[in-house]
Amino acid sequence: MLDNYEEKSLKRETLYNGKIISLHIEDVELPDGNHAKRELITHPGAVAIIPITSEGKIILVKQYRKALNRTLVEIPAGRIEVDEAPQLTAIRELEEETGMGAKKVTYLQSFATSPGFADEIIHLYIAEELFEIENPAAGDEDEFIELLEVTIAEAENLVATGEIFDAKTAFAILFAKHELKK
Amino acid sequence: MLDNYEEKSLKRETLYNGKIISLHIEDVELPDGNHAKRELITHPGAVAIIPITSEGKIILVKQYRKALNRTLVEIPAGRIEVDEAPQLTAIRELEEETGMGAKKVTYLQSFATSPGFADEIIHLYIAEELFEIENPAAGDEDEFIELLEVTIAEAENLVATGEIFDAKTAFAILFAKHELKK
Repeated sequence: MLDNYEEKSLKRETLYNGKIISLHIEDVELPDGNHAKRELITHPGAVAIIPITSEGKIILVKQYRKALNRTLVEIPAGRIEVDEAPQLTAIRELEEETGMGAKKVTYLQSFATSPGFADEIIHLYIAEELFEIENPAAGDEDEFIELLEVTIAEAENLVATGEIFDAKTAFAILFAKHELKK
Repeated sequence: MLDNYEEKSLKRETLYNGKIISLHIEDVELPDGNHAKRELITHPGAVAIIPITSEGKIILVKQYRKALNRTLVEIPAGRIEVDEAPQLTAIRELEEETGMGAKKVTYLQSFATSPGFADEIIHLYIAEELFEIENPAAGDEDEFIELLEVTIAEAENLVATGEIFDAKTAFAILFAKHELKK
């Protein structure tokens, strides 16, 4: 059975220990006894938040992503700081990116974004009963963002047309539509 | 406007040039003129396929993922080879992972999996009118997989319970449900 498909780690070499990601090469023993090398990225994990306004709209964030050399439309998201509980990351990032607080923050789900090579996990929250924060904490100083508010139907359309190109956001919108209908 | 939020590349250093991924450090100029460093992973891109059987079930793949040290349930997926058209990658991976061909392969959508640090893009296809291939091409020799077939409702439930922990698969299932209802 599948538990035997586990790959046993034989040796792990860290080639790069970065600010956000690290790169490791692992020698593994395969289920058939052969050996293989795995290129692995470790990442602290992140949260993403679906902020729902009192009008039932979703607040989205436009942000330039250097990795892709393009601007993406995403739900607010950010990395988990050392020793930070993901729920607090969600509240912090919501404030930093949208200037809003939320009376109701509900955990929805966690998922792996790139299991083929990275351990990044995103914890997804929905934030409701939003209120404006008077002097919101600033975000990262190297982060430049623009906000937009769209209805769920508009958001769905942005997914269908490919204008929302970010997997977590596309999933979150379909999930929100599903959840909010209940 | 947002086009000005672009980060201009000043210098790019490649720290690792791997079999699957490469790691680069880029010095960028921010919109406010300040400089920052970006840790970037490049990846050849991948496809993922939603295979729908004649009974309307989805074929899923169970596979050990070293990056997460756990077994994941995913839709069939794989990396794009050099100079390979994504549609051909989809057909090849479907054959290698499930032993099936498809008379109808439809492109659905592309999305970025980890825009914060990686350029990986997944192209999503749906494969219908499946047929068994007599001597299917074998997959990668270091890949050990197990197949399962589930109804869309069962798949949705696996997403809701978190047993499907892979973002592309979770998105694909919600998307398929949506599409197949049309």
